[in-house]
Amino acid sequence: MHISQDERDAVYKTIFARRDVRREFEPDNIPDDVLLRILTAAHHAPSVGFMQPWDFIVVKSNDVKSQIKSAFEQAHAKAAKLFDKDKSRKYKKLKLEGIMEAPLGICVTCDRTRNGPVVLGRTSIPEMDLFSSVCAIQNLWLAARAENLGMGWVSIIENEALQKILGIPEHIVPIAYLCIGYVSQFQEKPDLEKLGWLPRENLDNLIHYNKW
Amino acid sequence: MHISQDERDAVYKTIFARRDVRREFEPDNIPDDVLLRILTAAHHAPSVGFMQPWDFIVVKSNDVKSQIKSAFEQAHAKAAKLFDKDKSRKYKKLKLEGIMEAPLGICVTCDRTRNGPVVLGRTSIPEMDLFSSVCAIQNLWLAARAENLGMGWVSIIENEALQKILGIPEHIVPIAYLCIGYVSQFQEKPDLEKLGWLPRENLDNLIHYNKW
Repeated sequence: MHISQDERDAVYKTIFARRDVRREFEPDNIPDDVLLRILTAAHHAPSVGFMQPWDFIVVKSNDVKSQIKSAFEQAHAKAAKLFDKDKSRKYKKLKLEGIMEAPLGICVTCDRTRNGPVVLGRTSIPEMDLFSSVCAIQNLWLAARAENLGMGWVSIIENEALQKILGIPEHIVPIAYLCIGYVSQFQEKPDLEKLGWLPRENLDNLIHYNKW
Repeated sequence: MHISQDERDAVYKTIFARRDVRREFEPDNIPDDVLLRILTAAHHAPSVGFMQPWDFIVVKSNDVKSQIKSAFEQAHAKAAKLFDKDKSRKYKKLKLEGIMEAPLGICVTCDRTRNGPVVLGRTSIPEMDLFSSVCAIQNLWLAARAENLGMGWVSIIENEALQKILGIPEHIVPIAYLCIGYVSQFQEKPDLEKLGWLPRENLDNLIHYNKW
């Protein structure tokens, strides 16, 4: 199947316009057909040995969101102590999640036991199944952006807390808690770049030829 | 920035038409501007704390490719012994890489020390930096597909071998060795699905609401 130049440009536009959204969520409901489309895109990610190790827990309940927000606050307070004084003060001022504001949460997991003990392609690098779930997350992110939905990855939550709140079985690994919703606007640049937390690296310095 | 319905459809088309390519590579050269475009797309992936932990080692040298092919063959022979007799026979018949055929190899890595010891957002889940490099890989994969380039992820290589062959410093983790090139065709379905290795999971069974 051929991808035309216009189609290619649409893919690049979506990749460059994707943001990690925390501050701009609107409460508007996400239609079920839109939700199904973005989850279908996630399900068509590559996976090691065609293992498809992912599950998707869709969170709409305010009660469940509140519990997740508390788990974030605990992890966030603990994290703030790890930075030196100056960075810590900056860190505490950043808005790093939109758990309550986003109409939808999605927890993406990885079932490391799916489809048997020996997985084709996971024999040298055991983390390949976790990486497959991450590919699904990136597909979901770009599909969401293509639907003009913002998405944010909240990584400042202990996995044990997520597991308990969402009733995730012990052998299943939570990979991400994602906030999704329509937004007032998409920022032109990543928040952390705009706010001077870190600059964008120069791509030229990251490309090597034949050897590091 | 608004994504139109046509642009959205182009993103979905690209996501669903993406394949893990091993058998269909053509020797045609990939123009430098195309290579730079797909690497730029990778560089615009999300990363934890805007860490951008990735590097890209572009492999064009046949000598380097041969060494990587040998490393694959060693890991592959070792892996074949892990399956039971029936699966092992099937496994050995599968074409799992296009290292020599693809004009380009790209090794994507993760520098776990980049931008200091405490990374915003990596405090609860230390693997978040590895996951960021995987997001870059999935961006690269979709950008390649949008350029009508096939890509395959060769995960059956020991990291130590990759590190040695490509001169990757000890503190840098290789995440993927990717084969990239124009192709004779894109298969309609994943090879492993088509060949009956595993079926596609039913998405309905993978979606949960509020609790697992």
